[in-house]
Amino acid sequence: MLVEDVGENNLIDILTSVFRDTDGKVSRPYSSKNSDLDLKVGIGDDAAVLDFSNNTIVFTTDSLVEGVHFDTRTSDWRAIGWKAMAVNMSDIAAMGCVPTGFTVSLGLRRDIPVNFLKEMYCGMKDACNVFGGTIVGGDTVESDVMFISISMFGALENDSKQACEQKIMTRDSAQPGDKVAVTGTFGCAAAGLAVGFKDFKGTKFEMEDKILKHLRDAQNLPSPRVTEGVELLNSGVKAAMDSSDGLVEDLGKICESSEVGIRLRTDWIPVDDFLVKAFPERWLNLALSGGEDYELILTVEENKIEKINRKFPGMITVIGEVVENPQRVILLDQNNNENEINVKSWQHFSK
Amino acid sequence: MLVEDVGENNLIDILTSVFRDTDGKVSRPYSSKNSDLDLKVGIGDDAAVLDFSNNTIVFTTDSLVEGVHFDTRTSDWRAIGWKAMAVNMSDIAAMGCVPTGFTVSLGLRRDIPVNFLKEMYCGMKDACNVFGGTIVGGDTVESDVMFISISMFGALENDSKQACEQKIMTRDSAQPGDKVAVTGTFGCAAAGLAVGFKDFKGTKFEMEDKILKHLRDAQNLPSPRVTEGVELLNSGVKAAMDSSDGLVEDLGKICESSEVGIRLRTDWIPVDDFLVKAFPERWLNLALSGGEDYELILTVEENKIEKINRKFPGMITVIGEVVENPQRVILLDQNNNENEINVKSWQHFSK
Repeated sequence: MLVEDVGENNLIDILTSVFRDTDGKVSRPYSSKNSDLDLKVGIGDDAAVLDFSNNTIVFTTDSLVEGVHFDTRTSDWRAIGWKAMAVNMSDIAAMGCVPTGFTVSLGLRRDIPVNFLKEMYCGMKDACNVFGGTIVGGDTVESDVMFISISMFGALENDSKQACEQKIMTRDSAQPGDKVAVTGTFGCAAAGLAVGFKDFKGTKFEMEDKILKHLRDAQNLPSPRVTEGVELLNSGVKAAMDSSDGLVEDLGKICESSEVGIRLRTDWIPVDDFLVKAFPERWLNLALSGGEDYELILTVEENKIEKINRKFPGMITVIGEVVENPQRVILLDQNNNENEINVKSWQHFSK
Repeated sequence: MLVEDVGENNLIDILTSVFRDTDGKVSRPYSSKNSDLDLKVGIGDDAAVLDFSNNTIVFTTDSLVEGVHFDTRTSDWRAIGWKAMAVNMSDIAAMGCVPTGFTVSLGLRRDIPVNFLKEMYCGMKDACNVFGGTIVGGDTVESDVMFISISMFGALENDSKQACEQKIMTRDSAQPGDKVAVTGTFGCAAAGLAVGFKDFKGTKFEMEDKILKHLRDAQNLPSPRVTEGVELLNSGVKAAMDSSDGLVEDLGKICESSEVGIRLRTDWIPVDDFLVKAFPERWLNLALSGGEDYELILTVEENKIEKINRKFPGMITVIGEVVENPQRVILLDQNNNENEINVKSWQHFSK
């Protein structure tokens, strides 16, 4: 059985089973002489959560690989640096925390110009200037394929510690009756990937420059919802995750973790005009399963939705509700017709 | 200017300069609303050190790359998993801490057998069973060259918090007059790499099986000095690092960080009989600059050496002393002749 035979989620299950006890839980960290440190959330959420003397640290990792996530010949290196930060910061934001520090493990070919790499670090610094955090260490190794592996940790803001009873937002806290809401809009990042290839549909892609730029920026310069995550946590939201694999697939992960179902109103999903104009036939598919949106998905009681909307107008859009059964995602169009679509969007390694 | 033109240390300086303020220090993490978290030690030591509400967390990262650090056709996968853990644990040990948790970022080819990877995770678990820590998260991405990027954090044992006034061992705390000491022996890991190639010196390498196994085990299954690191911290040792790049080069790093010199007695360096028997002419060179020993190097006042030796007989061996000037490593043989040797051992990327 090869990696391509099992798909990413199964692979992670198989490998981490080595660390699981008979009850299915990952064994606790070494703690005989270290009782202050406790693993609250391990594998399966956006970030690990550690309690440390009643403080909370979240911890996440994400890698970008040459030829898969970027191209050393054509990429904008500053944008690569930004995105390497943003995808990790998005995981931190999904827990309601702010980024505080990160390490960079670089696999480098000998023939990469140093100026490219410096430009990449400038992009990382750009993201830190906006969203917080700084570099604390790293490692460089030689590799025939370049990779950038970031590990980032974050913490609660002091205001959050006072404002909210719970310590963190997780995927497993959705309750039947909750409304499902999202930040931002969906589909532009995937559209940006599509228009990035000049031979799209066999012809040079023709589109207004400002639309092209808008879509490509959504793909190359995603904006992690750090401020929004903090505001949502402080507003009493308990269940959230960031959307990286496509809206429907990610909603499915909340359903699985929380053992609930979600009814999604496809006509309520926020999309922007540029996307509809550029992809008049495909925009809904891109919004549902395109991926790389790096928006927050949350579920929360209806009365809290109203308070959030009053305090932060336009920050979130309701797109559906949490139901008890079945434990899957149901799509409803504007005529209340249930739609069957393939809820499995792209998954790494699967054939 | 390409990566290969600058060498690893210069490359790190160039890239991290992006994050340094005008005073040369790395800018502090985002802390306007997060005053509990403080970066005590950043880039340039074995691990980053964060103070968090008066507790200490250390944080390190290291990657292994296919074709550079392992070979997917011939490697023992359980040993790869062990080593991926051990090199990170060694960094944690060098600070006097114990490993508590880690993430794994895997770059995978589609055609790698899942069983190989599971075996690798078993090797990781083996190391955690001995030295502590558990898996808390990870990421898998597709890559034409396989890589394993580990990020690990550790903490002080509770006993250490009470026993020692200082919080951590660092590279920049060596003082003139200190003795320089090491754990274990040097040179076997590099010898193991040499005998790993069957066409060594153009012929099949002939050596007693037990010697071959001893040397290869030193290369493939290094033992991070976690217990020793804790005992040294509790015994009042302030300056330590782990030895991965070769004894002389690593001593040079202490000299640079602490702004001191070190006089090294080459005839005092601990080596084992198997190494001398296998490499009667090269053993000293292998011990001085072979690398991958993953032993601890420390400097400490002479009166503390005696106490450590009484309490932990054989744990450390004195190999020299810290001097004021010059800020470099001086090698002395048994006749007190100063020896000039090339103190720059292998450095990634340099031509």
